[in-house]
Amino acid sequence: MKLNSFIKVDKESHFPIQNIPFGIFRNKFNPLPRACTAIGEFVVDLALLERKGFFKRILLKEKDIFSEPSLNKFMSLGRKACGDVRNEIQSLFGTERSEIRDNLVLQSECIFHKNEIEMCMPVTIGDYTDFYSSKQHATNVGIMFRGKENALMPNWVHLPVAYHGRSSSVVLSGTNIIRPKGQTKSDDKENPEFGPSKLLDIELEMGMFVGKGNELGHPVSVDEAPEHVFGMVLVNDWSARDIQKWEYVPLGPFLGKNFATSISPWIVTLDALEPFKTSRVKQVPEPLEYLKSNGDWLYDIDLEVKIRTAQSEDSFIIAKSNFKNLYWDICQQIAHHTVNGCNLRTGDLLASGTISGDEKESFGSLLELTWRGTEPLKLPNGEVRKFLQDGDEITITGWCDGDGYKVGFGEVKGKILPPL
Amino acid sequence: MKLNSFIKVDKESHFPIQNIPFGIFRNKFNPLPRACTAIGEFVVDLALLERKGFFKRILLKEKDIFSEPSLNKFMSLGRKACGDVRNEIQSLFGTERSEIRDNLVLQSECIFHKNEIEMCMPVTIGDYTDFYSSKQHATNVGIMFRGKENALMPNWVHLPVAYHGRSSSVVLSGTNIIRPKGQTKSDDKENPEFGPSKLLDIELEMGMFVGKGNELGHPVSVDEAPEHVFGMVLVNDWSARDIQKWEYVPLGPFLGKNFATSISPWIVTLDALEPFKTSRVKQVPEPLEYLKSNGDWLYDIDLEVKIRTAQSEDSFIIAKSNFKNLYWDICQQIAHHTVNGCNLRTGDLLASGTISGDEKESFGSLLELTWRGTEPLKLPNGEVRKFLQDGDEITITGWCDGDGYKVGFGEVKGKILPPL
Repeated sequence: MKLNSFIKVDKESHFPIQNIPFGIFRNKFNPLPRACTAIGEFVVDLALLERKGFFKRILLKEKDIFSEPSLNKFMSLGRKACGDVRNEIQSLFGTERSEIRDNLVLQSECIFHKNEIEMCMPVTIGDYTDFYSSKQHATNVGIMFRGKENALMPNWVHLPVAYHGRSSSVVLSGTNIIRPKGQTKSDDKENPEFGPSKLLDIELEMGMFVGKGNELGHPVSVDEAPEHVFGMVLVNDWSARDIQKWEYVPLGPFLGKNFATSISPWIVTLDALEPFKTSRVKQVPEPLEYLKSNGDWLYDIDLEVKIRTAQSEDSFIIAKSNFKNLYWDICQQIAHHTVNGCNLRTGDLLASGTISGDEKESFGSLLELTWRGTEPLKLPNGEVRKFLQDGDEITITGWCDGDGYKVGFGEVKGKILPPL
Repeated sequence: MKLNSFIKVDKESHFPIQNIPFGIFRNKFNPLPRACTAIGEFVVDLALLERKGFFKRILLKEKDIFSEPSLNKFMSLGRKACGDVRNEIQSLFGTERSEIRDNLVLQSECIFHKNEIEMCMPVTIGDYTDFYSSKQHATNVGIMFRGKENALMPNWVHLPVAYHGRSSSVVLSGTNIIRPKGQTKSDDKENPEFGPSKLLDIELEMGMFVGKGNELGHPVSVDEAPEHVFGMVLVNDWSARDIQKWEYVPLGPFLGKNFATSISPWIVTLDALEPFKTSRVKQVPEPLEYLKSNGDWLYDIDLEVKIRTAQSEDSFIIAKSNFKNLYWDICQQIAHHTVNGCNLRTGDLLASGTISGDEKESFGSLLELTWRGTEPLKLPNGEVRKFLQDGDEITITGWCDGDGYKVGFGEVKGKILPPL
């Protein structure tokens, strides 16, 4: 039977009752950040519902877990408990149950229109890891930097390559991005120069948040991996290509990346994504035993990147991709990350790397879309872009198409401000 | 006049009253982790002294800051306030003041022998950054991996190269290190294999902890940098060379490093290190303007690495180096790290990278000491080492030589356990 809520939800909404994402919000009535979910255009105060006793059978041992300023404590309970809470929310806001449906006073206390609240960082992030799991992206970048013959490094098809990013500069959607300054070196100059990045770029990614962690020295197997994932968000991993190019040998990206990484405010659970699982591409060569995952742990999530320039009121789509374009799935990523005993902690963010597909329109960065600036994008209003200019606003959105409904992620957006 | 404490301190001790490092401890009388300092063989409970009102003039706005389970809140107060507290401790435990000297009951409550307490992680670490600031180390590694002609990458002399490490696996001295498993590939085989690392190594490093942080988008200049450093510790950045070699192209080290990084428990403040400042090597080419530091921000800290094998009761010194062997100083590291707007937060750990000197005996890793295993170390008991074997215990120690006293860091140690 199709799930329905007593809250009216447009069929284009990212947040029908089938979704029930988690976030942190505050509002003018209560400035303290606390947990919420979204249904259609409305945000539901879970802290209030918990205090009123709605989750007491599930959250027996917990007290005011939704009144915390981050979701970490809730996420640490593990997938079963979080799933039970999500089921209870779906039931409470369905058409059958009356406790909230028929209580207008309670509704006025716990349901707010999205325009009347402010979303906050949902998670206190410990470590942020960035994978490099789209074969097309790794190939594109490889061709540009090393030529077609050596495009993919030999290790790439054997393991999900990754590096550690910076967690301090992970920011919430809507945060302006100040154009970074740094050292760059032109090929035709002998010495490096200092100044604002001229090759500021986006990276279309998705990220998963770790729910239950693992102890140092105790790897998580591919089969156990889903138990450690709380849910997913959209990620824009802003990149300064000129800074990156000069600094990254031999230890990898640093200042070219760590000035900002934006995430969307709503975490969509793996349970909500379950109906949208899709098969992974056949991996040749076959991965080593510890990377052989049972089942397919990728999802059919449509992704779209839009730009709005300072001169334009309209946004223009510049890329359309899909999460299923990844070669390495989320279970393989977790199994690899922990196989040496590395510990993941509740709240750690593991991003996918840029998600590019086969077609040029599906490339997830301006570096690829404009082929290093050699094929500038022509926007419908006549403007041209190689890389980002000050005033450009980038919005990434993503959703799964269900039968008459969507399960979506909302959006992650950020606008480029001139350097200080 | 020479500072002295009413607590008797051996002249070889790392912790005379001139030092006053900060740490976190607990004991059988009170299992809650709380702040302490060290004087000679004794540990002083700062939480108790604070509750008794000893720091109330300095820590006016704070309450029970030393009863926190980490030093973060204290460190966030900035160098002036932390320095004032340190001065007050020196004064309280000097020979002139009577409040503690003449109060045996209070002494029994707040002073414990080091054998009767347990040290804990001193800091909640946000991000962990690892620099690569020893020219000799970078050159050695470069020669081994790329040949003499291309040993140093062109960027190395222009900027302090660094990458992000993993903060979740930073562990306290004394924590056993489980030999990591992972993918490695022999040059003579077509495909990678999975198994325990065969080339497990140490890295002799030091790390600084950030005190006051900076806001995202607001760089810290070289001149402001010292205000953001709380103090320093010894670091052993364990490395699995075979895992690292196969995985690190093109995004840098990941699983080869993130299984464990050990730190010493005592944080020695920059104020305590001030008398041991030493001049930096002349930097040619001259660095860009934002990296020109006023004064010399390196310290004359003797460093020593010892090994004790499963077969031996004795430890053997395998390397002697010095912190002053670094090319890039701590202010240049911070200025570079933040020049793109990257924010440092209180408790972030910035490590130096392996500290190697010019002579072979001063190389800070087995990779260099045994020249990739081609020149095995002969230990005095007849054993031979290329890389670490199960049961090997590594101890790093470091100290500054003052006039009749030392300012030291204690030690960071760890023993290799077989893979699980």
